[in-house]
Amino acid sequence: MAGIASKHLIRIEDLTVDEIYSVLENAATFKEINTRTIKKLPTLRGRTIINMFLEPSTRTRSSFELAEKRLSADSLNFSASSSATVKGESLLDTAETFDAMKIDMVIVRHRYGGSPWILAEAMDAHIINGGDGIHQHPTQTLLDLFTIQEAKGRIAGLTVGIVGDIYHSRVAGSLAPALKMMGARPICIAPPSYQPDVPEALGAEVSHSLDEALPDLDVVYLLRIQGERAQGLSVPSLREYATVYGMNQWRMDNLMKPDAIIMHPGPMNRGVEITPEVIADSRSLVLDQVNAGVAVRMAVMYQMLGGEGDVATAAR
Amino acid sequence: MAGIASKHLIRIEDLTVDEIYSVLENAATFKEINTRTIKKLPTLRGRTIINMFLEPSTRTRSSFELAEKRLSADSLNFSASSSATVKGESLLDTAETFDAMKIDMVIVRHRYGGSPWILAEAMDAHIINGGDGIHQHPTQTLLDLFTIQEAKGRIAGLTVGIVGDIYHSRVAGSLAPALKMMGARPICIAPPSYQPDVPEALGAEVSHSLDEALPDLDVVYLLRIQGERAQGLSVPSLREYATVYGMNQWRMDNLMKPDAIIMHPGPMNRGVEITPEVIADSRSLVLDQVNAGVAVRMAVMYQMLGGEGDVATAAR
Amino acid sequence: MAGIASKHLIRIEDLTVDEIYSVLENAATFKEINTRTIKKLPTLRGRTIINMFLEPSTRTRSSFELAEKRLSADSLNFSASSSATVKGESLLDTAETFDAMKIDMVIVRHRYGGSPWILAEAMDAHIINGGDGIHQHPTQTLLDLFTIQEAKGRIAGLTVGIVGDIYHSRVAGSLAPALKMMGARPICIAPPSYQPDVPEALGAEVSHSLDEALPDLDVVYLLRIQGERAQGLSVPSLREYATVYGMNQWRMDNLMKPDAIIMHPGPMNRGVEITPEVIADSRSLVLDQVNAGVAVRMAVMYQMLGGEGDVATAAR
Repeated sequence: MAGIASKHLIRIEDLTVDEIYSVLENAATFKEINTRTIKKLPTLRGRTIINMFLEPSTRTRSSFELAEKRLSADSLNFSASSSATVKGESLLDTAETFDAMKIDMVIVRHRYGGSPWILAEAMDAHIINGGDGIHQHPTQTLLDLFTIQEAKGRIAGLTVGIVGDIYHSRVAGSLAPALKMMGARPICIAPPSYQPDVPEALGAEVSHSLDEALPDLDVVYLLRIQGERAQGLSVPSLREYATVYGMNQWRMDNLMKPDAIIMHPGPMNRGVEITPEVIADSRSLVLDQVNAGVAVRMAVMYQMLGGEGDVATAAR
Repeated sequence: MAGIASKHLIRIEDLTVDEIYSVLENAATFKEINTRTIKKLPTLRGRTIINMFLEPSTRTRSSFELAEKRLSADSLNFSASSSATVKGESLLDTAETFDAMKIDMVIVRHRYGGSPWILAEAMDAHIINGGDGIHQHPTQTLLDLFTIQEAKGRIAGLTVGIVGDIYHSRVAGSLAPALKMMGARPICIAPPSYQPDVPEALGAEVSHSLDEALPDLDVVYLLRIQGERAQGLSVPSLREYATVYGMNQWRMDNLMKPDAIIMHPGPMNRGVEITPEVIADSRSLVLDQVNAGVAVRMAVMYQMLGGEGDVATAAR
Repeated sequence: MAGIASKHLIRIEDLTVDEIYSVLENAATFKEINTRTIKKLPTLRGRTIINMFLEPSTRTRSSFELAEKRLSADSLNFSASSSATVKGESLLDTAETFDAMKIDMVIVRHRYGGSPWILAEAMDAHIINGGDGIHQHPTQTLLDLFTIQEAKGRIAGLTVGIVGDIYHSRVAGSLAPALKMMGARPICIAPPSYQPDVPEALGAEVSHSLDEALPDLDVVYLLRIQGERAQGLSVPSLREYATVYGMNQWRMDNLMKPDAIIMHPGPMNRGVEITPEVIADSRSLVLDQVNAGVAVRMAVMYQMLGGEGDVATAAR
């Protein structure tokens, strides 16, 4: 089994290019296992994993939880409402408390960027960042890379447009540098107020026009526009945004490469960043991304915790 | 093992009479297993089940969850508060997301009648209706039938009074047609405003007087009266309701057949539809119903998902 | 295996001194198991345990849940928000309902003292009190005793100061009588309004001055001061409390025995009952207590439910 040198996965840069490819390779095996009647391996039996989701989440939390169960780990959910946070305990105290209980791994989602590092400092456990503020969301990026590679046969050399509120997006915060690492060409496509302060820091080019950039794109990656955050920014309205930056049938038919693919991290705002017709198109891979999510997370946990043997053997 | 032809259990009519009897037979075996020290079978190891309870529930959710664990399935809870519903995601999007994660079965409780069909359309998984609006609650009916058959030795030929707010009751919505299918005689006993619009559609007779109907009943099935819903209907008050339609010691002693049984789906309003003395009577089988619930749900999941072999063998 | 004669663990007095020592001995084995890669024993496979936490809790609930999973029990969480309590069901009805589902053990936390006895009356299951009102919290006491014995080599003969709001503390309600049983000398150190009504009932001496008592103490056990409860009592302010009863560097250096240990049940109010410097001192054993918690709870469940064989064998 190819391990992972970094103890934690907080930023996508914690992985080397080779490690990313090995995660994608193992994920392909796990993806096949997830189609079986008995979707279960003994790999992580007796390991303890805590899902610490301090922001609401369905798909990411469920995806991790399924990955843990299918690897036979013992897992425990810790959410903001049922927690010591009610009594005002600090994240540091919570981390030290769980550490004393001998936890092997923590999956953490938190509204403050960098908070996974607080856990990493305080605990012996491996930390996986399940999304921290507007910083990063590395397992989302791994499932995105998996989906791109499966659909296009490669990642290197592709031009990938990331469209939407890049400034506030932890999804983009991981995806753009990952694409650069893998030899792809990421372009941030957004109005100025949604652009990152220093796009070069993400390794990305910048465009203010979807219509101009679209003919070059192999991958159209749409971000979720949060209605409430649209207020006060340079986007006059959601309708205006949809008109200028939304992916619709006309753009798909007239401007997009015929073999380009369309992706979205979910949940989608139908009619804002994406129309129902685009969602229904066979080049829209949103559900493939979800499917890849469980497999990729199984691969990451397996490679970070997994002891001996390779997954192909374990899977038999 | 006798399977179940219908992929989903949304309405009690999804089962044939023979299938219902086979569920009851397997449930008897599971009921015995639940009395053992080691209450666990490997039957559904590696299967993934989601408990999607979008209305508060204790007994039904716990009953399903125990059934899943005792069959060794991997299960995951998804509730309204911890969910994407916070972000406004539609039930359809949630269904497609879980489908992409390769789920084998979904137990769904939802306040809108018919919502399980939305899941059934969108997913490959088997869907079990855990109660949808005022429509149906088929596993409740199976545990009711189990309890009746165990206590009375048969179902066919019995006269069963369903007493209370039948109009708003998904319990009655499943029970009345099931009784008709099984050859029993259901009677809806309620004031006019609580009667169903078309009682014949439920296969049931109608009575407006518990006192008149009681001497004929083999089973007195009391529904929960929801105080808040009583307002604005023809029932002047909960006290009035209790006087006319509540089961009490006097009615039990003077009007009820001595060998009749009393049932209630819980939770009970003590002093409204049932008095504490009636609850304490040995003919009141409320806790037998709860006990049957785990066993019946194990049987249904086993027969819908369960692969090879019969339960008697599995139980050894 | 040494069993436990009492069916339930509601008060620390439900255990004999010999049974307490046997729990501590088994806990030492479980503590070692919790440091292994595979932290899992098949001991309670097929047993059903319900965690009924009707007050918010992180460390106690997580500690029990981990103990259950590491012993391979099937467990189910029941909290106030997701529950029938919403529909106004009584604790008695909830107890009878779960009893009918054939539960082996219930861990209960409830804001009313004595409520575990309601469950014990209504159910066949073993009941463990996870903290009831201001009454008792016996597994907290067992982990405290474990920590004391590990650090000091014995319990008998030690002088233990319990400092803080003893009147409202279920932690003190279990610890003081336990210390007396084990041959230690407990002293309640608090202003008069925080003292128990009848300290002799707890088997404890009384002091109103930490500075006077500190030089005699082998163990300094600090209770959590709840800011909101401080109002209306004789403590003028949290700052005043910290000045007179808080453990700080100066008291540690000048009044405390050099080999005394400092304990706290958590969560801590930094700067009120304990300063950050004291927390960081190597004689502060707060995290050792947390660590002992999982092991002690595994031992208690094992001895109450655990059938044949001794843990040393099971652990191999």
